[in-house]
Amino acid sequence: MKAVVYEGPNDVAVKQVDEPRVEQPTDVIVRITSSAICGSDLHMYEGRTVAEPGIVFGHENMGIVEQTGSGVTSIREGDRVSMPFNVACGFCRNCLAGNTGFCLTVNPGSAGGAYGYVGMGPYKGGQAEYLRVPFADFNCLPLPPGDEHEDDFAMLADIFPTGYHATELAEVSPGETVAVYGAGPVGLMTAYSAMLRGAAQVFVVDKIPERLGLAADIGAVPIDFTEGSAPEQIAERTDGGTDNGIDAVGYQATVAEGEEQPAVVLNDLIATVRPTGTIGVVGLYLPEDPGAPSEDAKHGRLLIDMGSYFEKGLRMGSGQANVKAYNRQLRDLIIEGRATPSFVVSKRLPLEDAPEAYERFDNRERGYSKVVLKP
Amino acid sequence: MKAVVYEGPNDVAVKQVDEPRVEQPTDVIVRITSSAICGSDLHMYEGRTVAEPGIVFGHENMGIVEQTGSGVTSIREGDRVSMPFNVACGFCRNCLAGNTGFCLTVNPGSAGGAYGYVGMGPYKGGQAEYLRVPFADFNCLPLPPGDEHEDDFAMLADIFPTGYHATELAEVSPGETVAVYGAGPVGLMTAYSAMLRGAAQVFVVDKIPERLGLAADIGAVPIDFTEGSAPEQIAERTDGGTDNGIDAVGYQATVAEGEEQPAVVLNDLIATVRPTGTIGVVGLYLPEDPGAPSEDAKHGRLLIDMGSYFEKGLRMGSGQANVKAYNRQLRDLIIEGRATPSFVVSKRLPLEDAPEAYERFDNRERGYSKVVLKP
Amino acid sequence: MKAVVYEGPNDVAVKQVDEPRVEQPTDVIVRITSSAICGSDLHMYEGRTVAEPGIVFGHENMGIVEQTGSGVTSIREGDRVSMPFNVACGFCRNCLAGNTGFCLTVNPGSAGGAYGYVGMGPYKGGQAEYLRVPFADFNCLPLPPGDEHEDDFAMLADIFPTGYHATELAEVSPGETVAVYGAGPVGLMTAYSAMLRGAAQVFVVDKIPERLGLAADIGAVPIDFTEGSAPEQIAERTDGGTDNGIDAVGYQATVAEGEEQPAVVLNDLIATVRPTGTIGVVGLYLPEDPGAPSEDAKHGRLLIDMGSYFEKGLRMGSGQANVKAYNRQLRDLIIEGRATPSFVVSKRLPLEDAPEAYERFDNRERGYSKVVLKP
Amino acid sequence: MKAVVYEGPNDVAVKQVDEPRVEQPTDVIVRITSSAICGSDLHMYEGRTVAEPGIVFGHENMGIVEQTGSGVTSIREGDRVSMPFNVACGFCRNCLAGNTGFCLTVNPGSAGGAYGYVGMGPYKGGQAEYLRVPFADFNCLPLPPGDEHEDDFAMLADIFPTGYHATELAEVSPGETVAVYGAGPVGLMTAYSAMLRGAAQVFVVDKIPERLGLAADIGAVPIDFTEGSAPEQIAERTDGGTDNGIDAVGYQATVAEGEEQPAVVLNDLIATVRPTGTIGVVGLYLPEDPGAPSEDAKHGRLLIDMGSYFEKGLRMGSGQANVKAYNRQLRDLIIEGRATPSFVVSKRLPLEDAPEAYERFDNRERGYSKVVLKP
Repeated sequence: MKAVVYEGPNDVAVKQVDEPRVEQPTDVIVRITSSAICGSDLHMYEGRTVAEPGIVFGHENMGIVEQTGSGVTSIREGDRVSMPFNVACGFCRNCLAGNTGFCLTVNPGSAGGAYGYVGMGPYKGGQAEYLRVPFADFNCLPLPPGDEHEDDFAMLADIFPTGYHATELAEVSPGETVAVYGAGPVGLMTAYSAMLRGAAQVFVVDKIPERLGLAADIGAVPIDFTEGSAPEQIAERTDGGTDNGIDAVGYQATVAEGEEQPAVVLNDLIATVRPTGTIGVVGLYLPEDPGAPSEDAKHGRLLIDMGSYFEKGLRMGSGQANVKAYNRQLRDLIIEGRATPSFVVSKRLPLEDAPEAYERFDNRERGYSKVVLKP
Repeated sequence: MKAVVYEGPNDVAVKQVDEPRVEQPTDVIVRITSSAICGSDLHMYEGRTVAEPGIVFGHENMGIVEQTGSGVTSIREGDRVSMPFNVACGFCRNCLAGNTGFCLTVNPGSAGGAYGYVGMGPYKGGQAEYLRVPFADFNCLPLPPGDEHEDDFAMLADIFPTGYHATELAEVSPGETVAVYGAGPVGLMTAYSAMLRGAAQVFVVDKIPERLGLAADIGAVPIDFTEGSAPEQIAERTDGGTDNGIDAVGYQATVAEGEEQPAVVLNDLIATVRPTGTIGVVGLYLPEDPGAPSEDAKHGRLLIDMGSYFEKGLRMGSGQANVKAYNRQLRDLIIEGRATPSFVVSKRLPLEDAPEAYERFDNRERGYSKVVLKP
Repeated sequence: MKAVVYEGPNDVAVKQVDEPRVEQPTDVIVRITSSAICGSDLHMYEGRTVAEPGIVFGHENMGIVEQTGSGVTSIREGDRVSMPFNVACGFCRNCLAGNTGFCLTVNPGSAGGAYGYVGMGPYKGGQAEYLRVPFADFNCLPLPPGDEHEDDFAMLADIFPTGYHATELAEVSPGETVAVYGAGPVGLMTAYSAMLRGAAQVFVVDKIPERLGLAADIGAVPIDFTEGSAPEQIAERTDGGTDNGIDAVGYQATVAEGEEQPAVVLNDLIATVRPTGTIGVVGLYLPEDPGAPSEDAKHGRLLIDMGSYFEKGLRMGSGQANVKAYNRQLRDLIIEGRATPSFVVSKRLPLEDAPEAYERFDNRERGYSKVVLKP
Repeated sequence: MKAVVYEGPNDVAVKQVDEPRVEQPTDVIVRITSSAICGSDLHMYEGRTVAEPGIVFGHENMGIVEQTGSGVTSIREGDRVSMPFNVACGFCRNCLAGNTGFCLTVNPGSAGGAYGYVGMGPYKGGQAEYLRVPFADFNCLPLPPGDEHEDDFAMLADIFPTGYHATELAEVSPGETVAVYGAGPVGLMTAYSAMLRGAAQVFVVDKIPERLGLAADIGAVPIDFTEGSAPEQIAERTDGGTDNGIDAVGYQATVAEGEEQPAVVLNDLIATVRPTGTIGVVGLYLPEDPGAPSEDAKHGRLLIDMGSYFEKGLRMGSGQANVKAYNRQLRDLIIEGRATPSFVVSKRLPLEDAPEAYERFDNRERGYSKVVLKP
């Protein structure tokens, strides 16, 4: 079958690879109908990870079940399903606690597995015609048959739950004010989730006009950080700060063109939120980053304003989303017409166009901010 | 009346000062029966803050109500009461949310007030014969009449609730494992609170044998960090780490004699807790510390292992204790004989002995780890 | 001054009464600008309580501060404020826990006080020119100056927070399905709150077309219980029941004209919600009701389907709303234009028209479902 | 193999039955080392359910894994394991939410399955030599090898987690007061769990001196309801009531010898807990009970003091325990020596003695209150 394969820094190709097969009685094979390209794929694409050539990319997957193992109970051939980007077993202590992003079974020696991602276990990605899904009863979310809401449902594998997770980490509750740093697809899904949960006011910080425009379209207040300190702009528009804040940027934060400051968003958040506020971090931070701008940053050590953090009595939750904790509820909001996360999708392309899509996405070209591949 | 007055670095004196009086209808005046010296008083005593001479020390206060303002409803003359170290109004939005350590009323321009502490508002301390208590209905916790449990109740103003708060921040729940860094009075109260809440196993990290002995006495597992990496010692005794961890040390953490490493405890905690774990920080961190060992640390900026923090999906809560959220429940545990926090009290002394007590406490002399003054 | 005074069953009059004055240093006097008539006023009006003639009605009050006591800190003359219908002290253990509807101070021997309500303490109502507000720092919610959002803010004293409280009791969370029994003003505020919190689907059960129409207008699914069993209608439209359910009706539930069945809504809810679901009860039930249809019901004892309740593992929370826990957040949603609860207001009338308004409201006449008096 | 088989009312026999075998790839077969008799077995034994002859009893099971299906991942032959009494799939929406007592997969058409229990699915009981365990990765809790703590671990299948669940439903938190109705094994485990969680005071209500003695032994306050109204006795010993209350009795509550009053415990609890308190119900209530004392009770309808319930703003959670939510943590408390629930075990007997054990247990004979069978 055809699949998007990593060949090295800034190089992916659509190649023939072996079709997956049922390896365990609890597996299913899914024929992929939609698989989106994620901003976190660019970390590998740009060579900013230790990924080796040969990885099949793709962790934002949905499709139709083609084959089921003998130990699968609730999923049938022909079912339309969405798979969380995190592979999880459902029975380890982290999964039991709802922390399916930190499964102790699927990636031994580590906490958490994913499809098509370096360091996240042996699971091939879904930017391909077929995908093997382990522990299928746990990892498949059934969807209504047909092709309605296809692009909305395609957001259920990662970015809609990730945005929602950010609002959980930040403990957003109705009537509160929230600051979201980053207006990329995850930042927008975060702001959108905050609105869905009843936030009174959502600020979205970025510098790219198109992104800020999308934020305004969903009812958020856009803050352009090139026009002055974001914490100060937000303090002026609130009573000295927001109740909560969210980092949807991560370690590759840039202030000016090409100048990375990996701690700038975290410290801006510490300045932005009110005393007793909560910060949620879904932007990625890595323990090892060979391309970092300083020796400490290369090992994931960042200068954090701990004095202010403590004085304000802040809380900070972090980590990749436990998609399974939210995807059913978010699916139901889509089905009932209460959520349409596909507004972030900028383009649908056949699998063959993946190399061009990656290149243009990496160049931040307009129209390539969120591409869904249709194998 | 007599009071303990700060005269300058390493210098306190017992001097005559004006007696407090009812200034607002909601005030009461309390005759102090017990006022303990706190480790955080040493930050001022050592000149590691911007405290000016003249401050009356003492934020761990209890006593008998001597006089009540005309707007006081529930407190009567003769009542025996404990006062949280934090002064709070009870009606601002932070107080309403239970965050009485971050009251927006009592120390305008800041969040949080306290008796006898630099930067915490105009409230005189209780290492004195009398104390003015504002918003008395809110700030006085009634105690049973008489003098039973006096030393236990003396712990209700600060360190018992602070230890308990640490376990709240760290979300300690029954059957879990906890690592507490620091076996001073607050660390011991933290370990004790974790046991009270049903933790399966509590590790307490320190280097001073007497402190570690007290930790063992209450059923905790002492870890001497001079015998090897504390995170590794704990990892070996658990399944790779604890569920939660607590910083009861703060920015003046020392590894060897006199060598401060302000971030060492935070980074050890990031290494100690399991993925998805929670960290509670009650050890003090300051935005400005002129005596810090580096330029960044002078401004409260510390090198934190954010890469590991995010990879593990950790949470971290921080800040001074909201005493009012816990002191009634902890009082009831004392009354029912289920808690006896006075085991940390090392000495009772008359007010006159305060200067010697401060000096010996600051020298970490045996028997001076927790002194209660009896005016 | 003029005030609406209860004269006996089905009889209120606008009479001259003494103006209130500051009695305690913590009081303020408010000049009322809006005071709404509440469905619970009808319980007294109809003689279904032990209310004695002479009570000044009105617990949904807002206005301008006219005078402040000497012990008031945060409220100034001229401030525009909303008062929760529950009078509360802010410092008893129930208030501290956020349960301000069950204050132990303001109505000694009972739990909870209110303005202008039988059995809720000595507090006069606000369907009058002026109102005395005790513990004013705690009981006044500041509003923006001017007269913008007047009718929206008028809903902050009771029914908007009561509706929101229902969704808290029922633990409504995003993506869930909810059944609300009763489409009166409180039921509509409940459905509206559930939508604000991100419910996927909200069913509203009633029999009056106008009410069901309003429910549909805010995006809920109207269920007419005269067209068949409400639990069955809802079961068909869901996967066998809703996640949560809310009783916004109470003990005066009628199935046919004039036929009261005090337990019918509770048992319908037990049938409606899914196993492990949660029920919130804000509709009133009373320990003594002389007008009840059976001897047991006269003493508040109702036949409840406990067998089904237990088998399904249900939870049920109940009681009057703790308005103070929500009114600031709901105010902010109004200010930001994210909530406009005034859509339930059917009429604004001068104080003089109160007698007619009560009569027509009690007759369920169109246009009198939610009247705001403007003294 | 030999197994305890239900033959009809008041009649069980030890008979030869077919050995279980792996039916699904996700099954394991466990050789039973301990299987306890439960009070809920008596409901069937006494003919108070619709159980048909032929049922193999036993839902409190532990043992050694004898055989594993091909789809089992984490469990190996030779592992010592405890099985929750509830059979659960781990992937339905109720299991995902932690409500494993209400699994939607294992007992189609119903919510919740169990071993050896009428109406709980086709799963044979473990009062036998071997047991088939479906969804074994999810349903087996690994225990340390050997035979240490065997009787303590035998309590992990049901009554220790059930007692703990009661304290969760009742939201018991440190420093609170709790009333537990019923001092049978489940009531004692409830009181014991409340102590473990840090309750300040636990009252246990019963009339049997031996049971009340055991309650006193673990630090609870025994209340003999034959000496006067239990709610009044408790009100006198507290400030008017407890913070929480628990029903560990259920529908077969008796006041005098043989006189059942199915609602008496629920109404006593409504009288016992303070306003804003929470009630947890783990004592069984059934939608159909042919042996009930009234027509309404036969259909699970009980007269409940709803008026008081609402006036006090109470909450009530109910239902069988979600064992999987607690058994790992409780296991760890046993391993660390912090909990020894085996204090309730009154006798260990070979499987052959089951008929006599059932008869004597049903007669409430001393020494038969909690029997563990050792096949």
